[in-house]
Amino acid sequence: MAAKQKVCIIGSGNWGSAIAKIVGRNAARLPNFEDTVTMWVFEEMIEGKKLTEIINETHENVKYLPGHKLPENVVAIPEVVDAARDADILIFVVPHQFVRKICSSLLGQIKPTAAALSLIKGFDIAEGGGIDLISHIITRHLKIPCAVLMGANIASEVAEEKFCETTIGCRDALLAPVLRDLIQTDEFRVVVVDDEDAVEICGALKNIVAVGAGFVDGLGFGDNTKAAVIRLGLMEMIKFVDVFYPGSKLSTFFESCGVADLITTCYGGRNRRVAEAFVKTGRSIKELEDELLNGQKLQGPITAEEVNHMLANKNMEDKFPLFTAVYLICKGDKPPSEFINCIRSHPEHMVKA
Amino acid sequence: MAAKQKVCIIGSGNWGSAIAKIVGRNAARLPNFEDTVTMWVFEEMIEGKKLTEIINETHENVKYLPGHKLPENVVAIPEVVDAARDADILIFVVPHQFVRKICSSLLGQIKPTAAALSLIKGFDIAEGGGIDLISHIITRHLKIPCAVLMGANIASEVAEEKFCETTIGCRDALLAPVLRDLIQTDEFRVVVVDDEDAVEICGALKNIVAVGAGFVDGLGFGDNTKAAVIRLGLMEMIKFVDVFYPGSKLSTFFESCGVADLITTCYGGRNRRVAEAFVKTGRSIKELEDELLNGQKLQGPITAEEVNHMLANKNMEDKFPLFTAVYLICKGDKPPSEFINCIRSHPEHMVKA
Repeated sequence: MAAKQKVCIIGSGNWGSAIAKIVGRNAARLPNFEDTVTMWVFEEMIEGKKLTEIINETHENVKYLPGHKLPENVVAIPEVVDAARDADILIFVVPHQFVRKICSSLLGQIKPTAAALSLIKGFDIAEGGGIDLISHIITRHLKIPCAVLMGANIASEVAEEKFCETTIGCRDALLAPVLRDLIQTDEFRVVVVDDEDAVEICGALKNIVAVGAGFVDGLGFGDNTKAAVIRLGLMEMIKFVDVFYPGSKLSTFFESCGVADLITTCYGGRNRRVAEAFVKTGRSIKELEDELLNGQKLQGPITAEEVNHMLANKNMEDKFPLFTAVYLICKGDKPPSEFINCIRSHPEHMVKA
Repeated sequence: MAAKQKVCIIGSGNWGSAIAKIVGRNAARLPNFEDTVTMWVFEEMIEGKKLTEIINETHENVKYLPGHKLPENVVAIPEVVDAARDADILIFVVPHQFVRKICSSLLGQIKPTAAALSLIKGFDIAEGGGIDLISHIITRHLKIPCAVLMGANIASEVAEEKFCETTIGCRDALLAPVLRDLIQTDEFRVVVVDDEDAVEICGALKNIVAVGAGFVDGLGFGDNTKAAVIRLGLMEMIKFVDVFYPGSKLSTFFESCGVADLITTCYGGRNRRVAEAFVKTGRSIKELEDELLNGQKLQGPITAEEVNHMLANKNMEDKFPLFTAVYLICKGDKPPSEFINCIRSHPEHMVKA
């Protein structure tokens, strides 16, 4: 790697802008990074002016993170190839459906020695069904290593510099401390583990569990039931990784990407909220997405469907009764009132001692 | 063990009465238990009538679990020796400060083949300072094995038969299935693990973490910070068990007694609530106990003090910055505003990969 590493942030939404605050400041402060951090911004017109120009003049992403100044060394660039060309570290933070297209644009246009860090939560659908990890897509398309960053990191709170933790999953022992230095601040504490896949999978599966937690809230159960659903969901997350991406450590699920992000998502978060409304109103997920999310898709039901495809292929739906119940209920094949019955005799309740 | 096992519940508060509903029904239903379950009730006069008489006539503990019928085979008995004399299984569910006295009364008066199950949360203080586990006290005094039951089990919700999970810690492979059968229902799901000590310690240490969670709420931090505090607290719980009661399994902390009970306690629960008020009002814990808890002691600050004694003895306070900060803040030696600074450079944030 070069003596001074250049950093490019690909994406400039709420989360991308929040991380740009941190990365920009660290790059300016630390001797081993180039001061200038490029940020690819999908060009939009805001009241007749280009968003990139607004960001470069006012140092504020007025559309996606209004009220926060970005460091002046963060430079918005409208062409992704221009932003990424000279970078040693590419931070991906875009909606997951854009990843393949961006990778196609970047192929052959970036440094072959570059490394990626993905902040993207959610799976992509593999050809032939089942899931594909975003970091794997990046590595496969661009032939560069891709670490991941996940955790209990609501973007607005990170931008407000409220104390929190995050997890970086990075197998490359040389890259790990570089990423850590680039990301860590006094308020944003980093733990690096080598379980890349487990870290990334946690960030997607938690949304299925949050839908289950929302069902519990909608059905009027109490704190005990909700805690049981969160715990059983966590056990299915662990089992899923064990079955489909074996070799990860149990301790990874105790990191911010695991238990902490799960808690936050099951108490706050849109998946929980829409699932609660789903039970209480009896309307479809689609109708609620249109009304509550401006037509945006809810991640939990989509992930539940992708995961179900993998479980059904292996005849393992009964080993994951919570994931399966969330899938069937969201699809309309089971009433929400059946949710608890589905997890009552969970494999976890079989005798261990 | 006898063909039909006799069960005695020692205690009849809120939690004791809730568990009596479950145990009474299971004992009547299952062939391997005697129908009659004795319940020791600390005799009190309620509007001129003895509480034991009220319970035996109306099958309702009008003082501690009003509105719920106990099974008719649960018989209230005012003398603990009378209640326990013929029992094969003694379920302890009394405030922890009464355990030693009750054990003194029972010594030599119970079956030598009996086994105990403790539902008591919290430590006792050992002679010379430090902590003593309640199950160890019972075993030492009565020379019988003592399993434990802990979990995300708010008594009122258990009494209302809302679905939840619990953890039984039991090293005795013959006793484990017996306890499981006695406790498990369709709504109250049991997982048995052999890590008795870890299960019990979780039930006490979670209250320290809940005080920390209350500080975060009182200081106005968001969900990210709270998730970080809960997670760091969990890591200190794991480390504490590892240092002082080595040999437990990491998986035990994923059981209901671990992560689930911790979540419930850090979102609901009196420790969180009083700690939040402590920060917001600036009043002392003692004043708040008097006002909010009718003078009852809050468990978290007491446990934090007992734990600190053990940490200080081993010069390990800096390895447990969250436990230590809760102790110092409750004692008035540090302002609550210093809480986040105390955990900012947590040992967990040291490089792992």
